[in-house]
Amino acid sequence: MSQSPSTSTADSGPFGVTAPAGFRAAGVPAGLKSTGARDVAVVVNDGPKKAAAAVFTSNRVAAAPVHWSRQVVSDGRADVVVLNSGGANACTGPEGFGNTHRTAEHVADALGVSAADTIVCSTGLIGVQLPMDKLIPGVDAAVAALGAGGENDGGAAAAAAIMTTDSVSKQSGFAGTGYSIGAMAKGAGMLAPGLATMLVVITTDADVEPAALDAALREATRVSFDRTDSDGCMSTNDTVVLMASGASGTAPEPAEFSAGLTAVCTDLAKQLITDAEGAGHDIAIRTFNAASEADAELVGRAVARSNLFKTAIFGQDPNWGRILSAVGTTSAAFEPDRLNVTINGVTVCRGGGVGDDRDLVDLTGRDVSVEIDLDAGAAEATIWTNDLTHEYVHENSAYSS
Amino acid sequence: MSQSPSTSTADSGPFGVTAPAGFRAAGVPAGLKSTGARDVAVVVNDGPKKAAAAVFTSNRVAAAPVHWSRQVVSDGRADVVVLNSGGANACTGPEGFGNTHRTAEHVADALGVSAADTIVCSTGLIGVQLPMDKLIPGVDAAVAALGAGGENDGGAAAAAAIMTTDSVSKQSGFAGTGYSIGAMAKGAGMLAPGLATMLVVITTDADVEPAALDAALREATRVSFDRTDSDGCMSTNDTVVLMASGASGTAPEPAEFSAGLTAVCTDLAKQLITDAEGAGHDIAIRTFNAASEADAELVGRAVARSNLFKTAIFGQDPNWGRILSAVGTTSAAFEPDRLNVTINGVTVCRGGGVGDDRDLVDLTGRDVSVEIDLDAGAAEATIWTNDLTHEYVHENSAYSS
Repeated sequence: MSQSPSTSTADSGPFGVTAPAGFRAAGVPAGLKSTGARDVAVVVNDGPKKAAAAVFTSNRVAAAPVHWSRQVVSDGRADVVVLNSGGANACTGPEGFGNTHRTAEHVADALGVSAADTIVCSTGLIGVQLPMDKLIPGVDAAVAALGAGGENDGGAAAAAAIMTTDSVSKQSGFAGTGYSIGAMAKGAGMLAPGLATMLVVITTDADVEPAALDAALREATRVSFDRTDSDGCMSTNDTVVLMASGASGTAPEPAEFSAGLTAVCTDLAKQLITDAEGAGHDIAIRTFNAASEADAELVGRAVARSNLFKTAIFGQDPNWGRILSAVGTTSAAFEPDRLNVTINGVTVCRGGGVGDDRDLVDLTGRDVSVEIDLDAGAAEATIWTNDLTHEYVHENSAYSS
Repeated sequence: MSQSPSTSTADSGPFGVTAPAGFRAAGVPAGLKSTGARDVAVVVNDGPKKAAAAVFTSNRVAAAPVHWSRQVVSDGRADVVVLNSGGANACTGPEGFGNTHRTAEHVADALGVSAADTIVCSTGLIGVQLPMDKLIPGVDAAVAALGAGGENDGGAAAAAAIMTTDSVSKQSGFAGTGYSIGAMAKGAGMLAPGLATMLVVITTDADVEPAALDAALREATRVSFDRTDSDGCMSTNDTVVLMASGASGTAPEPAEFSAGLTAVCTDLAKQLITDAEGAGHDIAIRTFNAASEADAELVGRAVARSNLFKTAIFGQDPNWGRILSAVGTTSAAFEPDRLNVTINGVTVCRGGGVGDDRDLVDLTGRDVSVEIDLDAGAAEATIWTNDLTHEYVHENSAYSS
């Protein structure tokens, strides 16, 4: 890795989906959001290569654009991604699928490409039809803004257009040897495994074949987005798209490319957790000395999904009993009387019983580290989650999403 | 069934653990609770029979009294149950197990029975040792109060002594043909399957052999407590004990006994849900037309564990998209475009898409009915849960339990 990935606050290095050569993007307001903010985006791969890979939600109730885009990317090629906020187009039946199809046809015609190479992503409320009378003119406006140099032109505008309850837009990037990777993401709720609720578009000017792109993307998402579990709720619309233009002329060393891609995905995953609805603490649950990586992931996820643990962290209470009671619900290999738990550096539970003084734990900061020692092997995994707060309850009881 | 089970507010019929012949109970304040409320209880089976069965938490991190009591009941006999609130005695190591043993020995000596026939139950904070200097005198006081006729004598006093964050004590009963069943329960948080967090003692003067008691108890808990999922968090201490004195001289018809026992357990399960920490709505999720009962249970539980669904109900928002997105995470047999969802009588989702007007759904009442039609078979199951409220977050961030 030649440098660490940039984050949305960094001002150096490649950054956003238009940083790699061969890509244009735009984001415009089309009236889908009642606020008048940007809500339609396009990201175009101008090539010369049009390699692509994508992963989607494993939710069996998948949105129309997920069904459409799975088919599009199945041949390893995508020329453009069109995205909208302000409506998920999920549980909308044949009419909803028709609207996705029509959107793809429209943007493809405007750009002179094939609808069969056009990925569609939607996010917003489930169970309502998209206002096509606003979306179609929005697509035209986004295409018109591409490269026009105005405020709607470029990766930053596209990143803004896909926000829903996000409080900030999310971008990242990575500078490889002779190529770069850029990315944008949205997501602040319904963040859970088998993809956190989110739309992610990643671009690169590296020259990578579709099969290698797909392998690198699956490995990167496995240890980043798939280990993000904010509220245990899996979306119907999650999509991560990776497009490679080959415009740099560089065919990267596979290990470096994979590491760079993983760094970008991990950076975005952490940005998603930090901006999760109503979160007051960002919690990293590292399970180590596990018999297998799967066991470590299982244990971390069980703790991440415990509302009692999450409310305790909100209350700055190092309540390790709630951690052990969650660990005890799993099938992971461990002996209850050999478990150790360390919270922010204090080993509050040792040998399954009382350890160091829990009053020594300082939970006033934003970041919380929970380390669970299973004493059963050498594998480990980290799950990222949030606390459960009044603000989470407020946002999700007041906002129909 | 000769009559419906009484509830804690009913004033007729058998009621509480001392209603059946052959049982005495008491509950006293011993200083384990800082409030000075009752916190130690004993329930004694005076026979002539001493048949018993019990089910325990499936949490692998089980409390010391659970390890002890599993052994006690393994021979189908129990003479007494001693219970304390104010401390769970979980994750307390060898010292904690020694304290459970000492408690059993002490109450057994006081009553002239064997410690090997003495069940121990504890509830409260995990990871702290019980104050034995208070608990042992409390046990003496409880034994002294048995049959003494004061305010600490009887089933109501025992039911009060096992409360933690419960706002009301919970009792139930059933009048069979020539015998009766009585019961008490506690539990208001960590309510989840494989037993809701709770202690339950059920007594009967029927003459039933241990094996038949065990079978009837397992069937009754399977469709009642095991289908209660308030907050998805499984306790380390859950225990349901059933003791039969045979004092009525009646050997009941098995089907009637099983139905009566199930009615009592279901009544108590509903009382637990109604009193769950911070709950504003009691939600019954009935999944029907499922390929199997297991599928129906799986789907109901997935919805019951969705924080987004639970916050929506708190906000009186009939957000069926959050129900479908939870259903979609399961492996149950269904086709997404054949799902129907009815909330409080309004079929808001039909054929996986938009159904009747969601504005017709009235969620102002306490009870919420969610009916999920999988259109995949003839089986069904109902899961009982609550909404997720500000009060839940408050209680569980402020109260170390």
